[in-house]
Amino acid sequence: MLMSELATRTGVPVPTIKYYLREGVLTPGRATSATRAEYGEPHVERIALVKALSGHGLSLAKIKAIVGLIDSPEASLLEALGAATSALPPASESAADTDYPRARAAFATLGRPLPADLPAVAQFEQALTDAEAAGLPMDEDRLRAYSPHITAIAAYEIDRMPLESPAAAIEYAVLGTVLYEPILAALRRIIHAELTAERLASHLGNG
Amino acid sequence: MLMSELATRTGVPVPTIKYYLREGVLTPGRATSATRAEYGEPHVERIALVKALSGHGLSLAKIKAIVGLIDSPEASLLEALGAATSALPPASESAADTDYPRARAAFATLGRPLPADLPAVAQFEQALTDAEAAGLPMDEDRLRAYSPHITAIAAYEIDRMPLESPAAAIEYAVLGTVLYEPILAALRRIIHAELTAERLASHLGNG
Repeated sequence: MLMSELATRTGVPVPTIKYYLREGVLTPGRATSATRAEYGEPHVERIALVKALSGHGLSLAKIKAIVGLIDSPEASLLEALGAATSALPPASESAADTDYPRARAAFATLGRPLPADLPAVAQFEQALTDAEAAGLPMDEDRLRAYSPHITAIAAYEIDRMPLESPAAAIEYAVLGTVLYEPILAALRRIIHAELTAERLASHLGNG
Repeated sequence: MLMSELATRTGVPVPTIKYYLREGVLTPGRATSATRAEYGEPHVERIALVKALSGHGLSLAKIKAIVGLIDSPEASLLEALGAATSALPPASESAADTDYPRARAAFATLGRPLPADLPAVAQFEQALTDAEAAGLPMDEDRLRAYSPHITAIAAYEIDRMPLESPAAAIEYAVLGTVLYEPILAALRRIIHAELTAERLASHLGNG
């Protein structure tokens, strides 16, 4: 398809597509003349990826890093997956405690190893610190209650990661993380509202 | 305690505390002289609440609305809870489809009612639309896989909502939403890393 059709298919305007090409997050089409190029389905998919990531607050530099990993993955897929998902927001703030004492204690409670060098560990430590400071610390009971359910959700997701190509695996991991996280968060809030109405109704009924 | 002690206890500087007083998100202390006032534990707790909410991107206007609901809840606790949690970010964008067709279909699949007038429903619709646009639509199987686990997490949380006073219930609902959401998100990402390593190891072992 021509660039104009690519714009229609993806909903991304031609100047933005040209910008993606210049920045190297989109590979050039197949030149059919001096001024025309032919684009295909891989271009449609790549634009959807770039659009989704930039819609979730990623800078073009971070998107470029992720796209680079997809296009020429490192020797180890595990390392490439780690590098790609580490580029996702929120950026880990420079926590005062780089030893992550709360995250470490939480994983010890769960009897699981705490992976090293993962931005999510810094995010976890920060979130635990915030909860503590606000007077709603994460206690062991709550942690034990959350853990099997989050593990089941994560297991469903990782079981479905396509492994036929490193590129497909990396794309699924980054998109799955940024796209399903807000779905899970919104679902939790909607179900909160439903359960609150039920609990208050029964509380009033018993009161 | 004096304002200086309040600042030490909460880690919030005196000028910020004065700003909170001026803006009405903190009630004045008990005046002990023309220039001195005595503050107590409720002030410590309120500052922790304001700090936690502003740390999660809420404007002072929104915090003021929440604090107003805590201080003088409406006739119905359910309405006050709905109003308070509706003030939390992310702000629902004006979705093109205010009929929420994807959210509606998802809840029909789950056999549950979709609560009306909830910003989380607009967030859910937006998140489902984003996933669809990026080529990873939420299918029925994934929805059915997520639902019981998110419901179990939400049920644990709502069961622990203190009902002895409307203020305590509202405070728990808003803080619980903003504080535990990033904890759950970080936990999911850490467990992803762990399960990915396991799956790749077994994939390579079988391959």
